[in-house]
Amino acid sequence: MRENTVKTKFQKGEAVVNGWIQIASGISAEAMALSGFDSLTLDLQHGPLHYDAALPLLQAISITPTIPIARVPWNEPGIIMKMLDAGCYGIICPMVNTADECAAFVKACRYPPKGYRSFGPTRAAMYAGEGYAKNANDTVLTFAMIETAEALDNLDAILSVDELDAIYVGPADLSQSLGGLPGADWEDGKAYEAVLHILERAKAHGIYAGIHTGSVSYARKMVEKGYQFVTLQSDLGFLRAKAEEMVNGMKAKEGSEKGSSPY
Amino acid sequence: MRENTVKTKFQKGEAVVNGWIQIASGISAEAMALSGFDSLTLDLQHGPLHYDAALPLLQAISITPTIPIARVPWNEPGIIMKMLDAGCYGIICPMVNTADECAAFVKACRYPPKGYRSFGPTRAAMYAGEGYAKNANDTVLTFAMIETAEALDNLDAILSVDELDAIYVGPADLSQSLGGLPGADWEDGKAYEAVLHILERAKAHGIYAGIHTGSVSYARKMVEKGYQFVTLQSDLGFLRAKAEEMVNGMKAKEGSEKGSSPY
Amino acid sequence: MRENTVKTKFQKGEAVVNGWIQIASGISAEAMALSGFDSLTLDLQHGPLHYDAALPLLQAISITPTIPIARVPWNEPGIIMKMLDAGCYGIICPMVNTADECAAFVKACRYPPKGYRSFGPTRAAMYAGEGYAKNANDTVLTFAMIETAEALDNLDAILSVDELDAIYVGPADLSQSLGGLPGADWEDGKAYEAVLHILERAKAHGIYAGIHTGSVSYARKMVEKGYQFVTLQSDLGFLRAKAEEMVNGMKAKEGSEKGSSPY
Amino acid sequence: MRENTVKTKFQKGEAVVNGWIQIASGISAEAMALSGFDSLTLDLQHGPLHYDAALPLLQAISITPTIPIARVPWNEPGIIMKMLDAGCYGIICPMVNTADECAAFVKACRYPPKGYRSFGPTRAAMYAGEGYAKNANDTVLTFAMIETAEALDNLDAILSVDELDAIYVGPADLSQSLGGLPGADWEDGKAYEAVLHILERAKAHGIYAGIHTGSVSYARKMVEKGYQFVTLQSDLGFLRAKAEEMVNGMKAKEGSEKGSSPY
Amino acid sequence: MRENTVKTKFQKGEAVVNGWIQIASGISAEAMALSGFDSLTLDLQHGPLHYDAALPLLQAISITPTIPIARVPWNEPGIIMKMLDAGCYGIICPMVNTADECAAFVKACRYPPKGYRSFGPTRAAMYAGEGYAKNANDTVLTFAMIETAEALDNLDAILSVDELDAIYVGPADLSQSLGGLPGADWEDGKAYEAVLHILERAKAHGIYAGIHTGSVSYARKMVEKGYQFVTLQSDLGFLRAKAEEMVNGMKAKEGSEKGSSPY
Amino acid sequence: MRENTVKTKFQKGEAVVNGWIQIASGISAEAMALSGFDSLTLDLQHGPLHYDAALPLLQAISITPTIPIARVPWNEPGIIMKMLDAGCYGIICPMVNTADECAAFVKACRYPPKGYRSFGPTRAAMYAGEGYAKNANDTVLTFAMIETAEALDNLDAILSVDELDAIYVGPADLSQSLGGLPGADWEDGKAYEAVLHILERAKAHGIYAGIHTGSVSYARKMVEKGYQFVTLQSDLGFLRAKAEEMVNGMKAKEGSEKGSSPY
Repeated sequence: MRENTVKTKFQKGEAVVNGWIQIASGISAEAMALSGFDSLTLDLQHGPLHYDAALPLLQAISITPTIPIARVPWNEPGIIMKMLDAGCYGIICPMVNTADECAAFVKACRYPPKGYRSFGPTRAAMYAGEGYAKNANDTVLTFAMIETAEALDNLDAILSVDELDAIYVGPADLSQSLGGLPGADWEDGKAYEAVLHILERAKAHGIYAGIHTGSVSYARKMVEKGYQFVTLQSDLGFLRAKAEEMVNGMKAKEGSEKGSSPY
Repeated sequence: MRENTVKTKFQKGEAVVNGWIQIASGISAEAMALSGFDSLTLDLQHGPLHYDAALPLLQAISITPTIPIARVPWNEPGIIMKMLDAGCYGIICPMVNTADECAAFVKACRYPPKGYRSFGPTRAAMYAGEGYAKNANDTVLTFAMIETAEALDNLDAILSVDELDAIYVGPADLSQSLGGLPGADWEDGKAYEAVLHILERAKAHGIYAGIHTGSVSYARKMVEKGYQFVTLQSDLGFLRAKAEEMVNGMKAKEGSEKGSSPY
Repeated sequence: MRENTVKTKFQKGEAVVNGWIQIASGISAEAMALSGFDSLTLDLQHGPLHYDAALPLLQAISITPTIPIARVPWNEPGIIMKMLDAGCYGIICPMVNTADECAAFVKACRYPPKGYRSFGPTRAAMYAGEGYAKNANDTVLTFAMIETAEALDNLDAILSVDELDAIYVGPADLSQSLGGLPGADWEDGKAYEAVLHILERAKAHGIYAGIHTGSVSYARKMVEKGYQFVTLQSDLGFLRAKAEEMVNGMKAKEGSEKGSSPY
Repeated sequence: MRENTVKTKFQKGEAVVNGWIQIASGISAEAMALSGFDSLTLDLQHGPLHYDAALPLLQAISITPTIPIARVPWNEPGIIMKMLDAGCYGIICPMVNTADECAAFVKACRYPPKGYRSFGPTRAAMYAGEGYAKNANDTVLTFAMIETAEALDNLDAILSVDELDAIYVGPADLSQSLGGLPGADWEDGKAYEAVLHILERAKAHGIYAGIHTGSVSYARKMVEKGYQFVTLQSDLGFLRAKAEEMVNGMKAKEGSEKGSSPY
Repeated sequence: MRENTVKTKFQKGEAVVNGWIQIASGISAEAMALSGFDSLTLDLQHGPLHYDAALPLLQAISITPTIPIARVPWNEPGIIMKMLDAGCYGIICPMVNTADECAAFVKACRYPPKGYRSFGPTRAAMYAGEGYAKNANDTVLTFAMIETAEALDNLDAILSVDELDAIYVGPADLSQSLGGLPGADWEDGKAYEAVLHILERAKAHGIYAGIHTGSVSYARKMVEKGYQFVTLQSDLGFLRAKAEEMVNGMKAKEGSEKGSSPY
Repeated sequence: MRENTVKTKFQKGEAVVNGWIQIASGISAEAMALSGFDSLTLDLQHGPLHYDAALPLLQAISITPTIPIARVPWNEPGIIMKMLDAGCYGIICPMVNTADECAAFVKACRYPPKGYRSFGPTRAAMYAGEGYAKNANDTVLTFAMIETAEALDNLDAILSVDELDAIYVGPADLSQSLGGLPGADWEDGKAYEAVLHILERAKAHGIYAGIHTGSVSYARKMVEKGYQFVTLQSDLGFLRAKAEEMVNGMKAKEGSEKGSSPY
């Protein structure tokens, strides 16, 4: 069966560089997968795509060794199990605020007796190869998003839930829930304190920690702190940043050193 | 009727910054259109999309003032007219090697008596608003690609064809046809000579000149030379460049100044 | 940021003419948007389309000033937030029967501290332009459908829920729930009494009232009564009505006044 | 094998009421097919859809007894044969201007020895049932569009081509080619003369005649003249006409007889 | 109104041969429907398709007399009602473990006063023809999946729920829940005992019984036992079985009797 | 660069087992690719799919080592080059009847100076990896279909065309063109003689030979004769054969040996 190299890296203490897919195009997904990310997460929550648009992207990613993960729209067993059956090797679940919500989530990712996932890994078995039924429970990674004040209040309870593998910090929701503005790459204030606190408690519970970031420098900093799963913006963010950089390069007045601009 | 601002810029002697669409996603097309390009060209030739995938991208672009153009797969009236009926305000036709080929192309873009375009601007009339039937012949821009040795041999004849508005240089095909490697942004050699020669002859015939480029610096240089329509890479190229820049930023060893990397 | 002109009309005491989209085609959606409706609602409940089919329709509508709204399949946060992130400026939620259900719905539409909407307005920010994060809570309209006997029993409690902007009457469900037949444009009986009662209570609570209708005459009547948001059938209904009118015009025997029919 | 009831009606001297599909939605196509048209033509020329979008519409139409036809983008054997293999029982080919063009078209619709259609009726055999290989040549209808001055010059030669079943008049192109404006339902002038002349010559050659119209009254008139295949506008036209009628009904000032309007 | 021939067969004591759709292609769905199945179930739970991909398959099936059914991803009213509105004549709901869950499911399939299904059978009315509103409650079949130890514990309570028509056994989940391996066609052990027990209790309650099988021989055996609804594998299973049979036929060494193989 | 293992097998004198894709589903394409075929051909001619539907299938196939090939709808450079740019390692061109047609086809598959293929291998370079520009001309296989009496007349001329790698026999068209019925697996008559003659002449010219077959036994026979590329039916054929086998297994009366059947 195909190895979950994200889990292997986690177990070795290494950090995983995760890409984020919001463009529903098999071609751009294949390009992302060829760019060297360890894993790619299909964002079915805030990304403008749902199951039918996501499926061909999973096939595009499967051309490469990059591990496919999905962030689901909500903590709802139907879509969680559909994404697993489609071949995802990890699920990121938004807005996990209590231990009960966490248990409902992780059990949806596990076959009995550890959970209540229904059996029928139609594409997952094609992706994984022989042994899926036997090994799925030990292969699929569960990430609970910690992104609200309520989740902070219940943090140790959440982190104590069996079959939870990892947490994932959503810095925009976390900040907003703590009374701040939505944003990423916090360097101070309540959101930053929470980012460090979540990491510390996760480590104490033996749970891997991941976080969404907006820059290489912040992602590197988070890895140095101990986060083992860092996401860099998104494909759509990359596209727009580069497009604006190029257009601005063309449209900017060049000033005295180059003489008159054609514009 | 909606103005073709690309034509207006041409007439004013200004340069047009054109983006290039190869990702078949309405969302990424909308992002490109919001990035400030004057026009966006859907690449139905080398881009991995055909008519059915292209149509929603035209709608996404239409949200903004960016002018939509299509490069068709080949000099074939069926697809040329379909893209015009879908609302494109310009057609770039590949591999125009003779005056006859050029005439066949441009007449497919013009209603009688100037050409043989069939009437039925189903979406074009929605995009353009009132007056399409009357003004289409004066609004739609025709770009013949000059990209072979044969086209160079027939250059003046091609440039003399009625209803040809512009030429567009494909530097990779041009170079390969002249015995070189495929590539862009030529600074010397036969391909570069041809790039300058085509421009000079186009100007002599009162035909606007466009070219595909791989960088802001080369595009600016071409504008300074007199090219009035410059394309910067493509959306897929932007995405991949930024993704690789980010991944490399994470995966690079940082060296002595930062101590041991987590990788 | 793009203004929600539906809300503006509400605040001015004006009525909004809403169209209803059940055909999953960007072209027909663009045609509907060009027809002069103030707003268009994508019907993800009874319309034969779900998220992936709905997304390009939102882009088609965005070409025009028509305001996009979605009716979601059910009171479920995943799809509510997805439609908001896609750029909808209003959500119509079916089958809101209690104050708790209403609160769950409206809070899914509001960022903290007013609700629990998760932050990530990927396309909404493209549609709205600058300022979405700050202004979304004051821009997005929440419509709770009142369409059951249970909802009538709980009407004042529902209308008292914070962040509820409007109610929307589904006359077919309402009638069926009250023991009648499904249908629209009630002029008497329990359903009609309920239609008037809901309006009266909504006004008493300062909540805007909307209703689905099947004809211009009934819609005008409802506006005169005080409903400020009236829907006229649906695109599919329009298409079928006109198609049958045309076919019947051809197939009808013309009778004596015109002599023998060719059929 | 499923009967081509359009051909049967032709042979009986009856008129066929044809609908026109430009909306690429299986749901709207099914609604059109249920509306009572004898046949429905998928417009791949001016309609905003190509093969991949058209295929599910053919399946939707096949639910009903309505006969599916396609107008292809251009006289090109690839797409003609694809539409036949998809189950169309007739092909309307645009811009047939000479006998040679006509022969190239009709032979693409016929298996040897009558033509050069390639064998592989993948869906056609599912649609038609047993006997397709044997009966296809006698079942599939060929319609050459007569819509240019050149075609009028060559009319008798075109009408003499073996295996041509019918002609179809495109009044907009015809008028424009004759120096007029694009439009339909001509009642006088060169275009109207041509409409009558084409009909007369078609009858003389034993070729069925069809025409695109914009109204029931004109379609009825054409049937009275002898046209046996009349098209009424299009689904998109129906939708837009009804939508505008409804919106105008709402937005019109009602004047004195009804008191103050809310608008 | 179109008859639900599955229900008719149930009432006559006959068995229904059900096919299982996991390939999201209208063409393969039409081929399945033409193969002679009494009904076809779109598997939205473990099949790699969701609503937007499923809709055209329902239209393809509707070309034939085969009855369309859907297995929904989870016991959630939004998707249940969407599939009914799309024209399904039966819903199979996974993981029904308690009487309350069963009631929530079946009431989502029934209009008031028997349930809380919302009215708006947009495509269902096109599929069914006249009379849907009146007859839907008596036409649509409800199948609760019995596939866990918990469901076995609550079996009589589940089977006593009003408006439950049938149960459907998922042998893989059932076996796994009872401590065994996932698999089908059990001939002994706890899973087989449960298969017989469920049947016996269903008959005692007047509830029809269905089961998923992997072979004709087992399906025939189950019919002999009294199961009246048997599914044979899936379209994807058929495809893969035949493909592997063909490839193995080519790649197998033929041994001495045929001389040297080219492989 | 990824090796073309079909070419390697050809050069080693081995036979290639080719599968045939007519179902436009990434899932069924992945299943086919996992079934052990050496290559898979997307049938854009008689298969119900065109470019936009074919692209995700190429990505699905690319997950495995199976080599992707396309049969194009017609000998037209636009679609030939699009399929190559999408990553196909071979093109099968229908109805090649003369040496000129053959030259036009093969030159569309070769970069200058060997042909006139335009440069822009957008996805092909992702599929192939480094070196595509340099190696494409030596990697891509050209297959001309020999399937008419005219092609037989011109056989040696066709086989002498530079850059032709292989021929592919379409037995149905070939038979029909020779006055027979469409069909496959000919064992005698004119079609069989032609099958043997084509093979003999291909070998004489050093051109590889392929053929479409309907059974393992005939395919094995053809390989023994010297055909090195044999296709087994199609995915749709597999699906339908297995479905009918299963349904017939259920619906067949079992006769006396088993007692009364439930049917």
